[in-house]
Parts: sequence; C-alpha cells; structure tokens
Amino acid sequence: MNKPTLYTCLSPALLNLYDVKDCIVVVIDVLRATSTIATVLCNGAKSIIPVDSVEKCMRLGRDMECITAGERDGQVAEGLQYGNSSFEYPREFIEGKILVLTTTNGTKLLHMALTKGATEIVTGAFLNLSAVCDHLIAKKKNVILACAGWKDKVNIEDTLFAGAVMNRVKDRFDINCDASHIAHCLYGNAENDLYEFMKNNDASHYHRLTNFGLEKDIRHCLTEDLANVLPYYVEERLVI
Amino acid sequence: MNKPTLYTCLSPALLNLYDVKDCIVVVIDVLRATSTIATVLCNGAKSIIPVDSVEKCMRLGRDMECITAGERDGQVAEGLQYGNSSFEYPREFIEGKILVLTTTNGTKLLHMALTKGATEIVTGAFLNLSAVCDHLIAKKKNVILACAGWKDKVNIEDTLFAGAVMNRVKDRFDINCDASHIAHCLYGNAENDLYEFMKNNDASHYHRLTNFGLEKDIRHCLTEDLANVLPYYVEERLVI
Repeated sequence: MNKPTLYTCLSPALLNLYDVKDCIVVVIDVLRATSTIATVLCNGAKSIIPVDSVEKCMRLGRDMECITAGERDGQVAEGLQYGNSSFEYPREFIEGKILVLTTTNGTKLLHMALTKGATEIVTGAFLNLSAVCDHLIAKKKNVILACAGWKDKVNIEDTLFAGAVMNRVKDRFDINCDASHIAHCLYGNAENDLYEFMKNNDASHYHRLTNFGLEKDIRHCLTEDLANVLPYYVEERLVI
Repeated sequence: MNKPTLYTCLSPALLNLYDVKDCIVVVIDVLRATSTIATVLCNGAKSIIPVDSVEKCMRLGRDMECITAGERDGQVAEGLQYGNSSFEYPREFIEGKILVLTTTNGTKLLHMALTKGATEIVTGAFLNLSAVCDHLIAKKKNVILACAGWKDKVNIEDTLFAGAVMNRVKDRFDINCDASHIAHCLYGNAENDLYEFMKNNDASHYHRLTNFGLEKDIRHCLTEDLANVLPYYVEERLVI
C-alpha cells in the first residue's frame, strides 16, 4: 500500500510550491504563536480566532467582547490587550473565554494556507508535539509541515519542530522532500538540548526574544508536551 | 571594526528577501550547473554565456558559432548539442571555445540575481570551494550564498555547499542568519562523506540523477577543488 506523502515547507514564501488541498497542513510558529495557541486552548479557552491584522483584531475584540492579543516584531501590538506569551494565559484567566489573536508570522501563514485552499489545518509546537504526531499517524493523509519562519526567512526553531515531527513519524510517510531531511538532521543535532542548540547556533529569534527578557518564554516553548492538545481550524476558529 | 555580513538564501524564491546590491552573490547549483561551469573554465574555455532559455541558447549558438549546452529536468535539452556534465568537457574539447549554457535552476538564478541588481556574481560548487572561500575572505564584502535548489524547492546539496563555505569563512563575517547556521550544521553531519550523506538522507537529486545513471557525476560534483578556479560574471559572460 502506498504511504501518504510528507513535505516540509521552510518558509511561507515557498507555500505555493506545495498542493495544500486534500492534506493536513501543520502550521508551525514555535516562538511563539502556535505555542501560545496550544497553551490557551489547553487552559480551557473556548476558542481562538486567528486574524491577520491588528485592526481586525481590535474590531473583533470590540464587536464580540472577547480578549484581544498579539504581537508585531515580538512585542505586544499597540491597541491590543495581551501579548504572545503562554505565561499571560493561566487557566484562571483564560478558561471559557474567546481570544482574538494576531502575530507577525504564525497567524499570517494560517490565513495564507486558507487562501490557497487548505481544508484541514492544525497548529503545532513543541508544547503539543505528541498530539500533532499522534494525529498525523492516525489520519494517514498527506501532510505539509508549514514553518512560519520570520518574515519569510527560514528559522531554526520552526525547522527543528518539523525535524522533531519527522523523527516520530517518518516511517509512516513517503518522504521525497530534501527540506524534511534537512530538518530531521538538524533536530538530531539539537534534541538533547534544544535551548543550548538555539543559543550555540546564534538563532536570530533567540537573540530577539532574549533582548526582550523573554529567555523564560523560549525555554518554555522548547519543552515537549506541556500543553498537549490538538488545535484545529474550523469555522474561522481554532478549537480542540 | 565591523565585519561584513553573510546570508544564505536557500531558494531562488526567497532571493527578494535579501539586498543583492553591493555584495558578492555566490550562485550555487552543485548538481550540476556551477560544477560544470567551474570545470569548463578550468579546462580552458574562453568564456561561458549563461542564458535562461533553450531558445536563446540555440539562437546565440547559431549567431556566434559557439557550443550550445544545457539541460531541462536533468537531461540534455532538445535542440542543444551538449549536456550538463563535467565529463563532456575535457580540455582537448573545450579549450579556447565559448559555451552557451542553460540549466533548469542555476542559470535561471543567475539571471534573477542580475535582474534584482546584483553587480558582483561568482559561481560556487565543491569543485571550486577553496577558490570561492579565498575570494570571499580576501574581498571583505557582504556575501549572499544563493542556492539554486530544485524548481524553487530547497535541496540538500546546495545547502551543504553553503555549509561548507560557512565552515571555512564564518569567523570573518557577522552572521545573523538562521539559514546559514542550519547549512553549517548540516555540513557538519555530512563532511566525512558527502556522497553517503546524500544517499542516506534520500536527497531528491541523488535519486533523480542516479535514475539517469549519473552516479559518477554526483561523486565528481561532491569532490573538493578538482576545478579550483573562480568564475565571475562580467559583460554577460562567466570568465576566470
């Protein structure tokens, strides 16, 4: 029997090279959109509405009376209430609520995938690595691991996550994709200590967030299965 | 003193993210355009005229009475005399001649860089690794390592070459570029046996060329400094 295919797309600017229809698209923005999404839903939020602009985020927040959150260039965007850190969303705050979220890379990529005709979108981060891998193995459908990167540039952490998924699921898929093998090789070098790997390899996002005092966020976002749920997109929302 | 910058662009489709002006752009298409270019010039050809279409290649070949060569999808393009293999161009054949060359990825990328305003273009492959690295170190200018990939997809061998350059020159440059660090890490895993690494990691081009019986070409193109010259682009030609 033919195995389903798996491709890794290292940048949103390359997404048009892949056929996103009839497959599961895993949107990956480890630092920090898809980590925050896993945390918020794991902590009991009703849903997350990902939007691609700060203006839309503010408008929806007003109209629907829900929490607005997001960042631009790694900091809370002006006009929004909250940022893009898991630590802002403990259960006692977020349970039962709806969050409208916009981020520099992750939510943009999700909308790009929708525009290109994706019908099945889930979000992945180390915080929910097992949930994502279990889902991909169970569904037996073609998969695209779509890395958000940073403003269309390839980044280390999203590539590492693609590599972590490869590491767990590669035997179940037909993988004719150099980017997937590159990601897997990178992960093999990093898996013993992802944080040290990021630091030692001068990851640009490591510097960006460390400069904002967010080292704790990085360590958190590189930890496996702390918010092990499967966010999926349905009716303009992410739910679990 | 500030060091010059070095960036790695893993796909032609990402080239617009980088400012190609006022820097040295290294066009990389290991299998096989830039390997063939190094070989042909090392073996005494007067110059190579890279063109971006088979039609233009045929027209120039007729008008200028020079040799036409090139491939599409890894095989000699219809209407052209020769292909894209170093072994087709021994000194006794190519010395003193002019070659017009068009390939699926490498020559297209070169023209893309020109269109975007690049003023200083050299070509790199393992066959001329030392010549490229020595040049980059000597010039002390900003550098973009531009990988041709395969039809805009990231590939292993061009990424490996970027990593090999990183390995030799990284201390001389300011490198705030995750793609460069990814390439360097990949090369660290592969350097003991590039061919085995390509094979073990299911490199798509390994399969494509092996299916055409071109294993010998792959081994040749992964060997360091067999044609250690520096091809650079001037007045619509590549010369050394």
